[in-house]
Amino acid sequence: MHIAEGLKHAKKVAGNREAVVCGETRYTWEVFDQRTDALARGLASLGVQRGDRVAVLMLNCHRYLELYYACARMGAAIVPLNIRLARPEIVFILNDSETKVLVVDKTFASHIAGRDTVPSIESVIYNGEVTPADMINFEDVVIGGSHMRETVDQEMDDDDLAGLFYTGGTTGRAKGVMLSHKNIVSNAVNALLATGYNQRDTWLHAAPMFHLADVGSVFALTMVGARHVFIPIFNPVHVLEAIQNEKVTCTILVPTMVNAVLNHPDAGTYDLSSLKRLVYGASPMPLEVLKKGLQKWGQIFAQGYGMTETAPLLTGLDTWEHVVDGAPEQVRRLNSVGKEALGVEVRVVNAEGDDVQPGEVGEIIARGPNIMPGYWRMPEATAAAIVDGWMHTGDLATVDEENYIYIVDRSKDMIISGGENVYSVEVENALYTHAAVLECAVIGIPHSKWGEAVHAVVVRKPGMSVSEEELLAHARAQIAGYKVPRSVEFQLEALPKSGAGKILKRDLREKYWVGKSKYVN
Amino acid sequence: MHIAEGLKHAKKVAGNREAVVCGETRYTWEVFDQRTDALARGLASLGVQRGDRVAVLMLNCHRYLELYYACARMGAAIVPLNIRLARPEIVFILNDSETKVLVVDKTFASHIAGRDTVPSIESVIYNGEVTPADMINFEDVVIGGSHMRETVDQEMDDDDLAGLFYTGGTTGRAKGVMLSHKNIVSNAVNALLATGYNQRDTWLHAAPMFHLADVGSVFALTMVGARHVFIPIFNPVHVLEAIQNEKVTCTILVPTMVNAVLNHPDAGTYDLSSLKRLVYGASPMPLEVLKKGLQKWGQIFAQGYGMTETAPLLTGLDTWEHVVDGAPEQVRRLNSVGKEALGVEVRVVNAEGDDVQPGEVGEIIARGPNIMPGYWRMPEATAAAIVDGWMHTGDLATVDEENYIYIVDRSKDMIISGGENVYSVEVENALYTHAAVLECAVIGIPHSKWGEAVHAVVVRKPGMSVSEEELLAHARAQIAGYKVPRSVEFQLEALPKSGAGKILKRDLREKYWVGKSKYVN
Repeated sequence: MHIAEGLKHAKKVAGNREAVVCGETRYTWEVFDQRTDALARGLASLGVQRGDRVAVLMLNCHRYLELYYACARMGAAIVPLNIRLARPEIVFILNDSETKVLVVDKTFASHIAGRDTVPSIESVIYNGEVTPADMINFEDVVIGGSHMRETVDQEMDDDDLAGLFYTGGTTGRAKGVMLSHKNIVSNAVNALLATGYNQRDTWLHAAPMFHLADVGSVFALTMVGARHVFIPIFNPVHVLEAIQNEKVTCTILVPTMVNAVLNHPDAGTYDLSSLKRLVYGASPMPLEVLKKGLQKWGQIFAQGYGMTETAPLLTGLDTWEHVVDGAPEQVRRLNSVGKEALGVEVRVVNAEGDDVQPGEVGEIIARGPNIMPGYWRMPEATAAAIVDGWMHTGDLATVDEENYIYIVDRSKDMIISGGENVYSVEVENALYTHAAVLECAVIGIPHSKWGEAVHAVVVRKPGMSVSEEELLAHARAQIAGYKVPRSVEFQLEALPKSGAGKILKRDLREKYWVGKSKYVN
Repeated sequence: MHIAEGLKHAKKVAGNREAVVCGETRYTWEVFDQRTDALARGLASLGVQRGDRVAVLMLNCHRYLELYYACARMGAAIVPLNIRLARPEIVFILNDSETKVLVVDKTFASHIAGRDTVPSIESVIYNGEVTPADMINFEDVVIGGSHMRETVDQEMDDDDLAGLFYTGGTTGRAKGVMLSHKNIVSNAVNALLATGYNQRDTWLHAAPMFHLADVGSVFALTMVGARHVFIPIFNPVHVLEAIQNEKVTCTILVPTMVNAVLNHPDAGTYDLSSLKRLVYGASPMPLEVLKKGLQKWGQIFAQGYGMTETAPLLTGLDTWEHVVDGAPEQVRRLNSVGKEALGVEVRVVNAEGDDVQPGEVGEIIARGPNIMPGYWRMPEATAAAIVDGWMHTGDLATVDEENYIYIVDRSKDMIISGGENVYSVEVENALYTHAAVLECAVIGIPHSKWGEAVHAVVVRKPGMSVSEEELLAHARAQIAGYKVPRSVEFQLEALPKSGAGKILKRDLREKYWVGKSKYVN
């Protein structure tokens, strides 16, 4: 199955049902089908052909969803851009992907001034009211397309490229993750199998739509003809309002977003009873945040673990597996990313490539139709990541007797101090149990004797105080001495985060490692 | 994905959970994995090789499930035999399929006496206590296999043959429907997408396990690590007991079975509260039976429509779409087989091959990874059934504005009387609304003037009476005069049924058409 076939099904089984709610805009799957058909034709009239790249730099809105499907229908590859990127990073990606058409909204139109630095770009489409002179209005493209006679829908091969999703660049240049129609559709099926979403569901796009955490659901929810609700960008109050007003049943938030909504003073005044599944993922979930969420909102939390390269779902911890008051082996699972999702093989292997025994730390590897064919024009990086068909995630984990998987750390976030492995996530979990801690991140900083020393960066809750000594004593009561931070740095402002809401540890590390060639000693 | 990969996943995510409950036998997915591994080795030791056929003639039990998976693991094709077949029919199928190993239970062991009529058979495995001299005990095969060192698990191709499922033979010789691993796994995925079954579900095998109505669930429920409960053969009391005692959450029953359970005098004394989804299918559901079921058991009914050749799911009418007290367009859907299932394309087309408009009658055709590659060694029958990749079902149907599909009749059950098309199902639905009607079937019988005349065969409920005149007056109040039966035949015993519980209209027609070359005038 390719992506557009999912839309065809949605139109057939839910044509008269509401498809999108975006500000004042509401329309059905029938209309969505017409608009994406017209948009695809409009793109074709701008010279986009099968295989060409169309980049998008926008906040969340229904037109983002339309672009995903218009590109899929005509066989173009979408290149969703991280909204937090600096201009040089954007220019790099546009050139690297040889993007032919760029779509921007009013928030980002100024970013792309001077597009002569990207010779491949032939047109810029503008999503907004007052279109700059050198751009074409989005709705004009749709209207133009709707007047064209011939369909541009393509019979795709499952292996055709559907999109380039650029990742991190935390270690060197950004890499374009190629995802095929097969990758995206199989992930959508796996997500549906894990969740049971159906056409009566309403999804809230609050996490950014360029990021796979949300993108996975773009396709899954569309295939069943469910309803999409959009807010332009994450904001705790807008999330609460949207859930209440549109009776949202499911959404994904990254842990920092969950934390922000939970801690919002007005959170308790909204009716969130429609919400049946709040998926969290994309970075480690502090245990205390999760417990607080379960206590306040009930057993609606579900975890999805994965990465861009796996389109993204690898494992899931379902709502019923989130037990706070239960047997120790049940409660322990709150620290787990769950088990292998149906449709993908997930293993945790040691250096010899054998499945680890319970307790032993190994790397998570995965195989399945959702795994990317590779990085765009980076055969060596691809070969390093995918070995014998298995994607190597770089995440270190243990398993228990029931095959629940527990991530101990990203391999690059693990701290080696005095020869001991310290998993930053474990230390962060200990710090989060202190009532005054709003946010924290634990990193390794250079140390002449131990190589690296454990260092904590902490943001306190407004109006609450805790000293370094108190916090370290609090940690010492929970974790081994060598894991306790040697130093604490209090920050007044929120920790730096990626466009997807992940705390950017590399930014925190930076000042300590100035002049060093790499971030480990 | 091939079939055995689904079991691998079940073992990984639900290894310690109960897999099967069959009489006194209960064990986990871990044990199921071990037993099917041993059984596959044992079959190999009997000379079964990849591609060979293994036939099964048994009542429902956990060993039937084991055979499905043991064959899949080693790459053998299973040939599940209809338990109602006469000996010559069995001999035909065993020879046609060139079966190498046959598995029988004590109920059917006598059927296969004189197996010298099937030269391909090398071994007969016996599922029971006292093994006949010329057979091998099932458990001995498992024990023997468990002592073998080498695995016989195969890396299958998705297109490898997984089973031969012989159908009907209502029109000529039985045809072996070939289903590949891809067919079976994609159907299982489609069934899971339609239902949301997960590892906390318990399925009751009450419909016969040779028939695709139940077989579809064999694989779907296993893939998620759900629990299988078996009763040897359908019996209303055993169904009620199993649901109550094992807290069954889902099952499939054919309409005659639903009718029998609903009308059982003790039905109201059982606790059926665990049952969340009662799927019905395989033949038309009388509207009155469905309404009574919804009234007694609540909104737990879901319809699955399909056929052996499509592995089988094509369309579904979900529980929430079963509305008795609602708007007319909602209630009307109780007559519908629902909408296209996700994962398969279903169309209703007219003679020109175009999608029918609402109200127009056309044939249901389908395309997707669940469609059989063809009939075993019958290229002409295959070419007649599958045209340009589309399976032609032979079912006549209309659609409404929301793409709900309404089957008006099997094309071969449609009666042409005086040039008018009379759809037997519609007439039967009218008769079923009479309180005294337990079962009925409407057929065409030869008529010198009209070609065919509409004829009803009716079984009255015990202790209730209705005359031919009363029943026809009752029908006349509901349907057009030309559809009202010209004659009614009351039978004292249940109507003849297939092994899957379908009413055998060909048997009812037979005496009227003696000496005619075909069953239509």
